[in-house]
Amino acid sequence: MPRLQFWYDLASNYAYLSAMRIEELAADAGVEIVWRPFLLGPIFKAQGWDTSPFNLYPAKGRYMIRDMQRIAADRGIAFMKPAAFPAHSLLAVRIAHAGEIAGWTGRFTKAAFTAEFGHGADIADTAVLENILATLGLDAAAVMASAASAPVKDGLKARTAEAQGLGIFGAPSFVTDDGELFWGDDRLEQALRWARKTT
Amino acid sequence: MPRLQFWYDLASNYAYLSAMRIEELAADAGVEIVWRPFLLGPIFKAQGWDTSPFNLYPAKGRYMIRDMQRIAADRGIAFMKPAAFPAHSLLAVRIAHAGEIAGWTGRFTKAAFTAEFGHGADIADTAVLENILATLGLDAAAVMASAASAPVKDGLKARTAEAQGLGIFGAPSFVTDDGELFWGDDRLEQALRWARKTT
Repeated sequence: MPRLQFWYDLASNYAYLSAMRIEELAADAGVEIVWRPFLLGPIFKAQGWDTSPFNLYPAKGRYMIRDMQRIAADRGIAFMKPAAFPAHSLLAVRIAHAGEIAGWTGRFTKAAFTAEFGHGADIADTAVLENILATLGLDAAAVMASAASAPVKDGLKARTAEAQGLGIFGAPSFVTDDGELFWGDDRLEQALRWARKTT
Repeated sequence: MPRLQFWYDLASNYAYLSAMRIEELAADAGVEIVWRPFLLGPIFKAQGWDTSPFNLYPAKGRYMIRDMQRIAADRGIAFMKPAAFPAHSLLAVRIAHAGEIAGWTGRFTKAAFTAEFGHGADIADTAVLENILATLGLDAAAVMASAASAPVKDGLKARTAEAQGLGIFGAPSFVTDDGELFWGDDRLEQALRWARKTT
């Protein structure tokens, strides 16, 4: 079965759009999704940005809100810009990374994105994250300990370096088995077609 | 008939993609296209950029080339990155603006984009522009004189200020009769649906 890597930071609103539809589209296409949480911060810093481009460029930021509202309405999902934008997503992304071996990264990712961009919650808030983990039936204390462990911290650093090596400069990004890179929720269908055709 | 304004700079490669398909899509949707050539330069300058973001951010620039190659192949149109990128498009955009009253702006725009992004020509080169005008059956000398006239120069300045007032920060952009803004070739279908529904 061909695979498609889905690279995202939990602070990325457009990655929220992809997370909520990627599994259904991938199942229809016969493609396996590999969840690849990473941190955009170091990549933005390397481009000279110390915050989201939607904050750096106000006209672009205003447009993004309207664009999200229209797309969310079309797709029947909620959208609310969180007061803290972009969220300080380090802990949430570490949790997502910690879930990869046990296989709950996808479920956690959708729940965290829904809390953040569906309802405006702050995913930097430990109580918000613990509540999500408990709702998913996970042992919140054990997950928090795992997320704070050296293997997870180091693994995430390596992951972010890998993203830079793949040429990733934003999120969501999609990478096929043959190394083809696609950027943006609006390239998801094209990435799935590419993944299929190269098996 | 509902209208959709198509805002573009002739230096914008993604606007090339839209220019080559907007008339057919608009005809199918029953929407009239209003060509709105303008200059991105002053808008980029206001955002602190002195060149294209594809030059400022090399990873994004490399991705853009690959993205264009894939989309052009899918759509059966040519793509070649011109040696001079972004093109110094002032004269070409003035010509496009000069054609609005006579109604040949669309034909000129498609021919200029095809020369530039289909075949790598430099649209800052007067000989390239004169050749395009002659091929279109226009009086190149008369058009050049018109493009250099005060009304065209001033009209284009006002046009660019209007773009800023509409919240435009990039190209291609699409604006409906009720002032809804859409950015990017990948939003063209959505913009046409919006234009239809608000008549």
